[in-house]
Amino acid sequence: MRVTKQVTKGSLSGVFNAKSIAIVGASPRPGKPGNQIVRNAKAMDFDGLIYPVNPTQSTIEGLKCYKNILDIPGRLDLVVLIVGADECVRIAQDIARRWDEKGDVAGIVVVSAGFGEGGSADGLAKEKAMLEPLQARGIRVIGPNCLGIADQHSGVNTIFDLPPYLKSEVSVVSQSGAFAASFLMWAKDLELFGLSKFLTVGNMADVDMDEVVEFFGEDKNTKVIAMYLEGIRQGRRFVEVAKKVSQTKPIVAFKSGRTDFGSGAVRSHTGAVAGNDKIYDGAFRQAGIIRTVAVAEFYYTICALGKQPLPRGKRICVLTAIGGPGTICIDALLATGVVEMASLSDHAKNHLKETLARTAVVDEPQGYVDMTASVTEELHEEVIKTILADEGVDGLIYLITPPAFFSNEKLVEHFLNAYNSFPKEKRKPLLSVFTFGSHVAELRRLFERGGIPTLEFPDVAASVMANMVWYSEWRKSRLNYGL
Amino acid sequence: MRVTKQVTKGSLSGVFNAKSIAIVGASPRPGKPGNQIVRNAKAMDFDGLIYPVNPTQSTIEGLKCYKNILDIPGRLDLVVLIVGADECVRIAQDIARRWDEKGDVAGIVVVSAGFGEGGSADGLAKEKAMLEPLQARGIRVIGPNCLGIADQHSGVNTIFDLPPYLKSEVSVVSQSGAFAASFLMWAKDLELFGLSKFLTVGNMADVDMDEVVEFFGEDKNTKVIAMYLEGIRQGRRFVEVAKKVSQTKPIVAFKSGRTDFGSGAVRSHTGAVAGNDKIYDGAFRQAGIIRTVAVAEFYYTICALGKQPLPRGKRICVLTAIGGPGTICIDALLATGVVEMASLSDHAKNHLKETLARTAVVDEPQGYVDMTASVTEELHEEVIKTILADEGVDGLIYLITPPAFFSNEKLVEHFLNAYNSFPKEKRKPLLSVFTFGSHVAELRRLFERGGIPTLEFPDVAASVMANMVWYSEWRKSRLNYGL
Repeated sequence: MRVTKQVTKGSLSGVFNAKSIAIVGASPRPGKPGNQIVRNAKAMDFDGLIYPVNPTQSTIEGLKCYKNILDIPGRLDLVVLIVGADECVRIAQDIARRWDEKGDVAGIVVVSAGFGEGGSADGLAKEKAMLEPLQARGIRVIGPNCLGIADQHSGVNTIFDLPPYLKSEVSVVSQSGAFAASFLMWAKDLELFGLSKFLTVGNMADVDMDEVVEFFGEDKNTKVIAMYLEGIRQGRRFVEVAKKVSQTKPIVAFKSGRTDFGSGAVRSHTGAVAGNDKIYDGAFRQAGIIRTVAVAEFYYTICALGKQPLPRGKRICVLTAIGGPGTICIDALLATGVVEMASLSDHAKNHLKETLARTAVVDEPQGYVDMTASVTEELHEEVIKTILADEGVDGLIYLITPPAFFSNEKLVEHFLNAYNSFPKEKRKPLLSVFTFGSHVAELRRLFERGGIPTLEFPDVAASVMANMVWYSEWRKSRLNYGL
Repeated sequence: MRVTKQVTKGSLSGVFNAKSIAIVGASPRPGKPGNQIVRNAKAMDFDGLIYPVNPTQSTIEGLKCYKNILDIPGRLDLVVLIVGADECVRIAQDIARRWDEKGDVAGIVVVSAGFGEGGSADGLAKEKAMLEPLQARGIRVIGPNCLGIADQHSGVNTIFDLPPYLKSEVSVVSQSGAFAASFLMWAKDLELFGLSKFLTVGNMADVDMDEVVEFFGEDKNTKVIAMYLEGIRQGRRFVEVAKKVSQTKPIVAFKSGRTDFGSGAVRSHTGAVAGNDKIYDGAFRQAGIIRTVAVAEFYYTICALGKQPLPRGKRICVLTAIGGPGTICIDALLATGVVEMASLSDHAKNHLKETLARTAVVDEPQGYVDMTASVTEELHEEVIKTILADEGVDGLIYLITPPAFFSNEKLVEHFLNAYNSFPKEKRKPLLSVFTFGSHVAELRRLFERGGIPTLEFPDVAASVMANMVWYSEWRKSRLNYGL
């Protein structure tokens, strides 16, 4: 085959669905990233082939090792580079040669740094030199200066920091590998989050944010998109793509480089230009992107959208057994300006009063129910059923400091009895707040496995619910005006 | 003795330093609050006497049980009530009688609810009836509708939710028992926080916030005060007290009931009046109270002040090995308007450049150092020493996603070598951010035990540091103007 025969870009699908992966710079030494990549790739539920490449080894992690990617037999879909920048430039030539001979290699992941991110002429020149032969052949380049990709459905994983992960339908794209990996590790022990596809773009020398968002928008295993970004090159195209994707899938974003100093850090980090923050803010709103401002809010909004439906309206009920955190939650809900308190029907109010202890507070203030410390595990079932069934309620935040005398299993059972008594299409978003945080890890895991997001801060739960309401309203307004 | 002999209020010291505690409503049934109180009181390092009171039992948790508080021999300092409201009113009479006969009982803790908090005439009447005979004798009443008190130094503990806790010099006063207990349980597993005194005021029928703050201000085991409040009765006096205490001890506050709806919840919760939020905001600033707006910010500001000195200036250095979170931290620092980025000396900059890898980013933007992923445990020592020693640095935030190949012990060793190489009076505040959260629990515990606060969100670390800077500047301005 000749270069001239194909110059259209390959699809990212070829990368995420690779059936054979070469890891150039694979290492036999435990702890080294080049070893960790091989281990993580092997540990996945992946039915393809993994080829470590290292001229000095015969096997790595029990896999036959190759001296050069040109030696790898059969079809090769994906190449991971974790060697010096100069070496990357040389190997790009090898890949091009292989492509000319065999027509394989859909894409490469360049973990290595030392390219355009520092802004040096030398680094930029290397980036260009590496890219040229590959782009001329439509071979996709992810990075350089990135963690790479993972796909919990296809089993592809090139990330040294990320062992196999809980599977779901939320995909993550990030301009910071460390930040995205932080989210995944942060969420792991409490099982707060399940992952579909993961891609860190690094310097975006070839694959850019807008292409990834577009790809996730069409991906059947992606229902929610989480995005960390520092700066965007083709702003207009990005907004167009995001606006289209947002019609059907929520995009949750965290944008850094908000301040002048922050922009400086962005430049030295990925070489991106952070740009004017107000312009981003406006563009995000217009495109239906949920812009989060705090890290905890970002994390928990992603987790919530991964498990819960969107609210159909903006009337939220706060149910608690603990006055203080309940109050904090109401304050934070109303401070968003997006949410209204639920307007419980007389029927629901009366039924709650009959069900709960005399000291309980029902609908004072409006939409607020404090069951007080006298509540039992059993009582939860009827109370939650009543609230979720009520016409005046579009969503529910439940807060508790689980008393020592509660049984985790009993509480979860009664809670899920109530929640699951509604058919899928009648479900309303429900967030739970366990104010003891990781101290009640097992209880939280039980709720998470039952599909109920668990948080620890009442004000963050309020922001998350407000984000869900805002996005739902945005989507409705687009439909109403036929946009 | 006769009532007329003493009508001055007793000091809270008599309560916190009680040597004998009666628990009225003690229960033999595990899991019941009345049982849990006895267990927790016993589990403390307390060299006094504990008397369960319950007319139907002969012993509870191995302790001799009394039918009535009048039967308890010897001196009785503190009485805890966890019985119905009517019963509390009756027992208050017994306590008054006992006081008239023996002159003991410094104070009581009323855990029971059903008093003024609901705003009902009946409840208010009961509160008044319970209070009258006690206040006439100077016997102090904590609550009703509260969790009570704990003191890690004297070993007094009346809180059913709080087993013995790590000891330190931070005292907590709260209008919500659940919220305060949540903080303690949230912080427990990672050892983020140590406690000195703890008091939940409940309905504040007798002991009010301002008295507690004043008492903590004079307490030798209290160096930092944390406060959750919903509403204050004697605003002017509160501000005066706080302003005085703030000269020497930081007060960190979270005030809820910010919105109209939130105020409604406050009313039904403790019967307090939340008041105009802007007025509180101004009063807090004037009084040098650190007002936090997010729960995570509140929690971590308390933790940080408990372990770290105040900054002497406002120039903060951000040191990271991870570009994304570093950028988020800078953004959040500068958004506070309180902090400036550090201005590293040429000497420090040159030395950092020599010490770190060529790809490292030193002072771009100003005050920001990205060691990049190539950093080792050993390198931390020289880098942290250099930064902390520099004249242009008043405080340091360190952020990392700990690589799998790092040794926890080695990292802590080198980190603490650097930190401890400065004499106490030369130390500067240092916050660490481990973006993996509770996934690196053991590493965080090692740092915490070494005196370094560990956080998980880069933006929260920025707010915490800004709070420390704001308070330090407030204190300096008071000194400068001789206020």
